[in-house]
Amino acid sequence: MILAVCLNPAIDVTYSIAALRPGTSHPVTATHRRPGGKGANVARVLAQLGEEVTLCGPAGGDSGRWLRDQLAGSGVADRLTVIDGDTRQSVAVVDGVDATVFNEPGPVLTGAGWDRLAATFEQLVAGCSVAVMAGSVPPGAPDDAYARLVRLAWRHGVPTVVDTTGSQLEAAVAAGPTMLAPNRAEVGLPDGGPAELLAAAAELSRRSGGAAVISAGRDGLVAADGGRAWTAHPPRQITGNPTGAGDALSAGLARGLAKGLAWPAMLADALALAAAAVAAPVAGHVDEPLYRELIELSTVEEVPACR
Amino acid sequence: MILAVCLNPAIDVTYSIAALRPGTSHPVTATHRRPGGKGANVARVLAQLGEEVTLCGPAGGDSGRWLRDQLAGSGVADRLTVIDGDTRQSVAVVDGVDATVFNEPGPVLTGAGWDRLAATFEQLVAGCSVAVMAGSVPPGAPDDAYARLVRLAWRHGVPTVVDTTGSQLEAAVAAGPTMLAPNRAEVGLPDGGPAELLAAAAELSRRSGGAAVISAGRDGLVAADGGRAWTAHPPRQITGNPTGAGDALSAGLARGLAKGLAWPAMLADALALAAAAVAAPVAGHVDEPLYRELIELSTVEEVPACR
Repeated sequence: MILAVCLNPAIDVTYSIAALRPGTSHPVTATHRRPGGKGANVARVLAQLGEEVTLCGPAGGDSGRWLRDQLAGSGVADRLTVIDGDTRQSVAVVDGVDATVFNEPGPVLTGAGWDRLAATFEQLVAGCSVAVMAGSVPPGAPDDAYARLVRLAWRHGVPTVVDTTGSQLEAAVAAGPTMLAPNRAEVGLPDGGPAELLAAAAELSRRSGGAAVISAGRDGLVAADGGRAWTAHPPRQITGNPTGAGDALSAGLARGLAKGLAWPAMLADALALAAAAVAAPVAGHVDEPLYRELIELSTVEEVPACR
Repeated sequence: MILAVCLNPAIDVTYSIAALRPGTSHPVTATHRRPGGKGANVARVLAQLGEEVTLCGPAGGDSGRWLRDQLAGSGVADRLTVIDGDTRQSVAVVDGVDATVFNEPGPVLTGAGWDRLAATFEQLVAGCSVAVMAGSVPPGAPDDAYARLVRLAWRHGVPTVVDTTGSQLEAAVAAGPTMLAPNRAEVGLPDGGPAELLAAAAELSRRSGGAAVISAGRDGLVAADGGRAWTAHPPRQITGNPTGAGDALSAGLARGLAKGLAWPAMLADALALAAAAVAAPVAGHVDEPLYRELIELSTVEEVPACR
């Protein structure tokens, strides 16, 4: 079983409108709601691939109940911790040109809520092959939430994949996860090219003692693991909705770790999943035929490591 | 008891953000949720004034349950009809400069849903002093929904106040409600001055056989009832949130009808309520001390009727 962690799940609401005009009222022509939050998206992709996956994290209120119902329907085993407060929503307004997004901060996670969640995590992690954690943290969560979970996983000898940013990423580095999987914006290099990203991945790998994979959207990804490094490129540009591509990548890396894949195979698989997620209209889902096509065609190259 | 009708209730969500930048993601710094929909706002103002008020209309799903819990807490008697589908939400994004609003259309009201709702309305209207109905209608509702409710009310000799627009307003005119209470934008005169609005009110009064009150925001209101006409002005400009001011006006008119107030007293009272609603930060609520102050100070003048 793969254990996915979503510390700040959300209901992702998408509003279709004709054209966004600030300061005016807009009739919404179509509304879609689906479970969201990066860790929940990772879990849904794994479930879609037929992996046994369990999700932990906080959930509360009517919105939390709705989220759990939806996850259960998609094959994700639900071990979310019930908290006070309502699971947040995130509203994306799309007008054919742009998506404009409003992210609620999420309900406050109290100390007692965190303790229950961490206890559930430790209970579950003992029986999983890999733990994958992704996304922002809610108000009230410890500053080193991911680092604490990584240490709990190590206590049971379980490898971890972590996708986060800012101070949570910094703290996680110190806990030494098996693999860090941020995107280039999350490491402060939104326009970073291959050389810059390889240097950043090598630095993360060196500091964490584990591996680092930095995704660069349509430019593919770079990876560093101790003294070795790789770049990977998709065979062609996939157009669609890039939201959730990073979560599909994390799902692929977690599955690769669980299966013990070698680096080139793991990166080709994860990159194909990320590209196939772009082609799927909603986050947390991949275009399976495209995934099977791309996995054979992605280019993975071992490159000289930065020192 | 006053019966309020809300055919398209909503949860009004307000997101505070720093500045709206289309095409980007925004952290929401504060979130507020409250019951919404014009008819629900009318009911909440009446409850705040100590009036016995019952609300009917459709409600469904978790969001419908939340709405009912909130209304019960505010003193509104809940006779909402449970329907399939989730009660809609309306999201207002405020950034200190502007409010940008996204209105979900609402769940489809099926023929069976309408029949149950209309049966509940007829049962309740027989025991009320006045029925007040306000706002948009959901997808699937009859094109003459308000007209049908007005006719059901007449069958029991009960006066009606109707605030709506477009084809629903046209159909309602033909059913002859006691009082039509649209605002100037709802009658197609968003920038209409007193003479134009008086002519429009006289025309609505003539065609419906009842009275018409057209509100004009900070310019006050005009009223016409058969051969007579009035203008009313607030004593001073009130700054704040104009959303819900029209609903407070409808609440005042309904209460005035129920009490049998004469026109000048009814208009002064309703206008003071509308102004006191502007001063209250959220729709469906009035600033009571300001209301009591303004009621003595509003200027109501009988003017020559347009023929």
